[in-house]
Amino acid sequence: MDALKEIGVGMLGYAFMGKAHVNAYRTLPYMIDPPPALPRLAAIAGRNEAAVAAAAARYGFAAHYTDWRRLVADPTVELLDNGGSNDVHAAPCIAAAEAGKHLLCEKPIARNATEAKQMLDAARHARVKHMVAFNYRFVPAVRLAYDLIRDGRLGEIRHFRAAYLQDWLTSADSPRTWRLARETAGSGALGDLGSHLVDLARFLVGEPTAVMARTKTFITERPLPGGDGTGRVDVDDAFAAVIELEGGCLGTLEATRFALGRKNHQVFEVNGSKGSLSFNLERLNELNVHWAAGGPGGTGGWTEVLVTEPTHPFIANWWPPGHVLGWEHTFVHEIAHLLDAIANDRPVAPIGATFEDGYRNALICDAILESAAEGRRVEIG
Amino acid sequence: MDALKEIGVGMLGYAFMGKAHVNAYRTLPYMIDPPPALPRLAAIAGRNEAAVAAAAARYGFAAHYTDWRRLVADPTVELLDNGGSNDVHAAPCIAAAEAGKHLLCEKPIARNATEAKQMLDAARHARVKHMVAFNYRFVPAVRLAYDLIRDGRLGEIRHFRAAYLQDWLTSADSPRTWRLARETAGSGALGDLGSHLVDLARFLVGEPTAVMARTKTFITERPLPGGDGTGRVDVDDAFAAVIELEGGCLGTLEATRFALGRKNHQVFEVNGSKGSLSFNLERLNELNVHWAAGGPGGTGGWTEVLVTEPTHPFIANWWPPGHVLGWEHTFVHEIAHLLDAIANDRPVAPIGATFEDGYRNALICDAILESAAEGRRVEIG
Amino acid sequence: MDALKEIGVGMLGYAFMGKAHVNAYRTLPYMIDPPPALPRLAAIAGRNEAAVAAAAARYGFAAHYTDWRRLVADPTVELLDNGGSNDVHAAPCIAAAEAGKHLLCEKPIARNATEAKQMLDAARHARVKHMVAFNYRFVPAVRLAYDLIRDGRLGEIRHFRAAYLQDWLTSADSPRTWRLARETAGSGALGDLGSHLVDLARFLVGEPTAVMARTKTFITERPLPGGDGTGRVDVDDAFAAVIELEGGCLGTLEATRFALGRKNHQVFEVNGSKGSLSFNLERLNELNVHWAAGGPGGTGGWTEVLVTEPTHPFIANWWPPGHVLGWEHTFVHEIAHLLDAIANDRPVAPIGATFEDGYRNALICDAILESAAEGRRVEIG
Amino acid sequence: MDALKEIGVGMLGYAFMGKAHVNAYRTLPYMIDPPPALPRLAAIAGRNEAAVAAAAARYGFAAHYTDWRRLVADPTVELLDNGGSNDVHAAPCIAAAEAGKHLLCEKPIARNATEAKQMLDAARHARVKHMVAFNYRFVPAVRLAYDLIRDGRLGEIRHFRAAYLQDWLTSADSPRTWRLARETAGSGALGDLGSHLVDLARFLVGEPTAVMARTKTFITERPLPGGDGTGRVDVDDAFAAVIELEGGCLGTLEATRFALGRKNHQVFEVNGSKGSLSFNLERLNELNVHWAAGGPGGTGGWTEVLVTEPTHPFIANWWPPGHVLGWEHTFVHEIAHLLDAIANDRPVAPIGATFEDGYRNALICDAILESAAEGRRVEIG
Repeated sequence: MDALKEIGVGMLGYAFMGKAHVNAYRTLPYMIDPPPALPRLAAIAGRNEAAVAAAAARYGFAAHYTDWRRLVADPTVELLDNGGSNDVHAAPCIAAAEAGKHLLCEKPIARNATEAKQMLDAARHARVKHMVAFNYRFVPAVRLAYDLIRDGRLGEIRHFRAAYLQDWLTSADSPRTWRLARETAGSGALGDLGSHLVDLARFLVGEPTAVMARTKTFITERPLPGGDGTGRVDVDDAFAAVIELEGGCLGTLEATRFALGRKNHQVFEVNGSKGSLSFNLERLNELNVHWAAGGPGGTGGWTEVLVTEPTHPFIANWWPPGHVLGWEHTFVHEIAHLLDAIANDRPVAPIGATFEDGYRNALICDAILESAAEGRRVEIG
Repeated sequence: MDALKEIGVGMLGYAFMGKAHVNAYRTLPYMIDPPPALPRLAAIAGRNEAAVAAAAARYGFAAHYTDWRRLVADPTVELLDNGGSNDVHAAPCIAAAEAGKHLLCEKPIARNATEAKQMLDAARHARVKHMVAFNYRFVPAVRLAYDLIRDGRLGEIRHFRAAYLQDWLTSADSPRTWRLARETAGSGALGDLGSHLVDLARFLVGEPTAVMARTKTFITERPLPGGDGTGRVDVDDAFAAVIELEGGCLGTLEATRFALGRKNHQVFEVNGSKGSLSFNLERLNELNVHWAAGGPGGTGGWTEVLVTEPTHPFIANWWPPGHVLGWEHTFVHEIAHLLDAIANDRPVAPIGATFEDGYRNALICDAILESAAEGRRVEIG
Repeated sequence: MDALKEIGVGMLGYAFMGKAHVNAYRTLPYMIDPPPALPRLAAIAGRNEAAVAAAAARYGFAAHYTDWRRLVADPTVELLDNGGSNDVHAAPCIAAAEAGKHLLCEKPIARNATEAKQMLDAARHARVKHMVAFNYRFVPAVRLAYDLIRDGRLGEIRHFRAAYLQDWLTSADSPRTWRLARETAGSGALGDLGSHLVDLARFLVGEPTAVMARTKTFITERPLPGGDGTGRVDVDDAFAAVIELEGGCLGTLEATRFALGRKNHQVFEVNGSKGSLSFNLERLNELNVHWAAGGPGGTGGWTEVLVTEPTHPFIANWWPPGHVLGWEHTFVHEIAHLLDAIANDRPVAPIGATFEDGYRNALICDAILESAAEGRRVEIG
Repeated sequence: MDALKEIGVGMLGYAFMGKAHVNAYRTLPYMIDPPPALPRLAAIAGRNEAAVAAAAARYGFAAHYTDWRRLVADPTVELLDNGGSNDVHAAPCIAAAEAGKHLLCEKPIARNATEAKQMLDAARHARVKHMVAFNYRFVPAVRLAYDLIRDGRLGEIRHFRAAYLQDWLTSADSPRTWRLARETAGSGALGDLGSHLVDLARFLVGEPTAVMARTKTFITERPLPGGDGTGRVDVDDAFAAVIELEGGCLGTLEATRFALGRKNHQVFEVNGSKGSLSFNLERLNELNVHWAAGGPGGTGGWTEVLVTEPTHPFIANWWPPGHVLGWEHTFVHEIAHLLDAIANDRPVAPIGATFEDGYRNALICDAILESAAEGRRVEIG
């Protein structure tokens, strides 16, 4: 394995997403056979000195910083992995691009399309590899769905319906974290969850051409995280949208963090003239398909495909049939894809989402907010 | 049982819905114990002499007519059961009301709200009982959902999402029946399927206050039923809408006859602050519920309630637990409810849908069409 | 319909099963098109004068008796429908056969194989039509399973596993009805539920050749129904068996009335070399199938077939796709099959279960009890 | 983290199970917070020099050997992790125990109870920690089931039914690997899959007291792995057993590798007097529970618990609710449990399975084979 290229990783942020990314860097060298490159955990940055030092020790980063500018300046960092809050996506990514670093940015790429466009321009100008972490493209079942549609097996696509339902804000006691302020998050359920749906629509079906949408904030004041008074919630708790997609497909999108009982319920369904398929992230090892052609002896119906066969996307790296994967595996596939793009100068798109995808995604999210605010149909530019 | 009131039924139409209604009239006297009244199959009307005569013989009607005016004029008819196409809902119902007959009309009540208003006015003026056959109110699981919400068990309702998906128009070879022409049907998937969703929204949650919608006609020209040339499809093949409901609930509605693989897939979900529930008509004996309060020892989750216990709505009339009911049973419950209202002068509402419900439903459907045509949010009058 | 043969029905018993049978007689003339014959409700018998008179009035029987001998002697009765407790299966059926009446007997056919053999001999000698009401053969999904296996689509059958789980005896307060006494019932869960599984094994796969079994009585003393003291439970509350079937198939059977949460959970699975299928009575409109051949583009898996297409068994008589059937419909199909056999002198077997099937079923049930009692493998004679 | 004890791991075998164990050793230091100890990958052994060298490089072992005796003799090895075929379980484990190494052995512990007893005696005599890798005890849902039963929430246990169904031997072309020869495997589906079911029965319910069983070998001759001729299959392809458990519980066990369409379908159900639960390994993040006490407003039923809440067993180490785990996570929990037992001198039992559990498991498996061979009920010694 000596011939494998080493790629120095600099990570911004070390919470939920950071842990998932670290796990991918640390396991892919022995899980992916052969690995596309060898990630080296060069440095990690975060605002709190004690916390970032602990994270560096726990995860095995060689250095740690409390200022992202030092991370970006560190010559051992070749890839910036930006898992910070949405308000620190643009500046570090742009600076890193200018320093010639490759880029992996968590979603949504930015707080709005304007920021996203600046990031895209910087990445393009620097000619670095750039990826937005729309990790659900790397669920084996979702990738199988993509392959089936790409190969024309579903025929003409008539419907796409997707919802991403969670319930962690149902209680009025949940604190007003950075995710609930426009300044830090850009938007609420829309950017956090809905951007995944927009990406899936674009990945699987095609470009949205128009939207009609409504947003809702059910609880407008919440306790601040420190326990000190309350803060205003100025982002959407939920949105619902009707979308039109190229090719004449009619769609619906909805995201909320108030769907009591739904934990990580990302579901979508695609109906074509020759086949349909549906997916639920809480059962991410399964893809349901239906073929117009039916089955032997009158046995047409919805087939629950357990996407764990060695012939299924990504599975040959893992376990025998029926030995199911979990959520974090998506990052192993995603980051292996990016490392391969970097090490072997291959394109991130169309399998991975680039900053261009992130920018177009942001345009659509912005259009959803505009439609909701103005009560009218908005065409996507 | 001699003391039971007899009610003479005059039926308009004898196809799909006619058979379902007849079955209800014929089985409820021994299935419902005690029955609320004894229906007498007085007369049936249809355009084709041979067909209506055969239907009368098969189903046991005492008389048959080819002109609905004769049905309405028949003095043995006390209740007009109107299962004709949507363009023959208004005139016969209005005439029957004027003749003092009680009214049961299939859904949608009319081709538009204007017709519906005339029907409502006629029924009110005549002081007869009037019901629109929104039979899904009489699914035991749906009625259980109603009871749970009415009793406040779900808390404040935040979301209602409903879809009614079928696939029988997926093929371009399906003929252009009366259901695909505005003249006879009023609208397409909207009136046929969507009106059920609108009724469920109103029955379970409350009045919609505004809509944003889009319609779609995928195939605009189809072979005429006789095989003689083609006809234009000038109704919607599908619609999707974002709705707002009183009390701040955000909802989505969608209906289509192009969702390949979905046969009679009417699904809805309600999310409240204290509980959630979901339903699928293809598994109509089941209601799924989730309680914020959780379960013993960390066992909170979605409970699949098999709605076949003797304590569940309507079930005491039928079989032991787990001996499931079918689609047609909804009509037995519905018609028993109407006969009880007639025989004992009880109100049809709020459990049954009246012509007022039919009218308000039509207003909302009209608003959906208007929003789709104009690309803007439409408030419900 | 004048040409249709009328068949006079004499019914013994009017509780649970009686109501289900009556419903079949009353609805099949208009549900089955054309009906095979026209049942005439000639007479009904039961021990309690008031109750049987009420049942006759409610269900529309022309006469009623408190002594089954009078029912059997009634010349207007051409078919004895025996839905009495298991201890009144043999004598009335044998007497009716001797009087030249056709026979429909609820399952299990008798308390043991000896009684069953006498019934079979009487029916054969009288050359009347005879059927045991193993109604689950007439579930559309079960009949579809039968057709698929019969046509060889599953290849060589390796496994059959079946369980029939209910929970109505979980509580020690449930009374000791006739079903819990050997004198009246013959056996417990075995005869009541297990006999269905034995019939499905024979119907779908083939003859069992040997059994190893264990029975269990969890609660041996229960309150008598009248509230007057307690009575001994001397039948099995549950049994479990390993069975071997002709052709080398290995199987398991289990039935219990102590599976808390299982209401009418009759499930079976068949694994062949080319296909597998599974079924759950609580979702009786669905059959799950799996084909070794797989699906397009790597989409092999278990297909949930909604058995409501017009091409599926029995469905053309009912409703459009997705408009699901209920439990009682099985009796409509079953009794239509029997009336056709009677009216048109067609064989009841192999689609319907004859008294020969009832007798062989009883032999296997007796072997299960013997194996359980002696702790050894018992070969089926 | 300097204070953490380091434990040198010596691994025998590097295929399927080896990869799963390695992943646990490599990820638990940052996934489990804090980790119980720090595993050091000291050495790995396998018969093929090139393959074992490649495995050592890929997985990061400091040394590699082609003779397990050198592994056992290596002073840097403190824990022997034996993932070899069943015929190399006993000798290396016994030798390692004699050398004072702790022991982790894949299941089944040995080819038969005699070997297992020797292993248990050696481990006990050496006073080392010993564990059999019954990893399904460490599925969060299974552990939740254990907790619920242990706390008495299910009441008196009446039924346990378990099946482990796979299909990878359905085709006659599948080669005769070491798993299909008695010399190397001991038994077939019984030891490979059935031993897991026996362990779950013992872990969840209690000791089996008697069995009645049958085995089956469907295909007795298969191609040898090298492609050179065929070899005899002298182990069971499937077994089915009725078991009796202490406390009066009646159970069934079945395992097969011929259940076409079942990939890793390990299912069990427990019925108690107060509650029931069921599980399916292919949906390992879910546990289904039913409570006799019912739910609010008539909403009793089976609750699908998504076992991903921070309060659920093991979950606090991972991700937010609904971000599901995969199969390999079981090993992380299992090995963390063992390292904790070693580092802090805590008992492996009752949460983990010891060699005593392995031995008792082997006794039961031997009894199943004896019952099958002799056609009689066998009591467990």
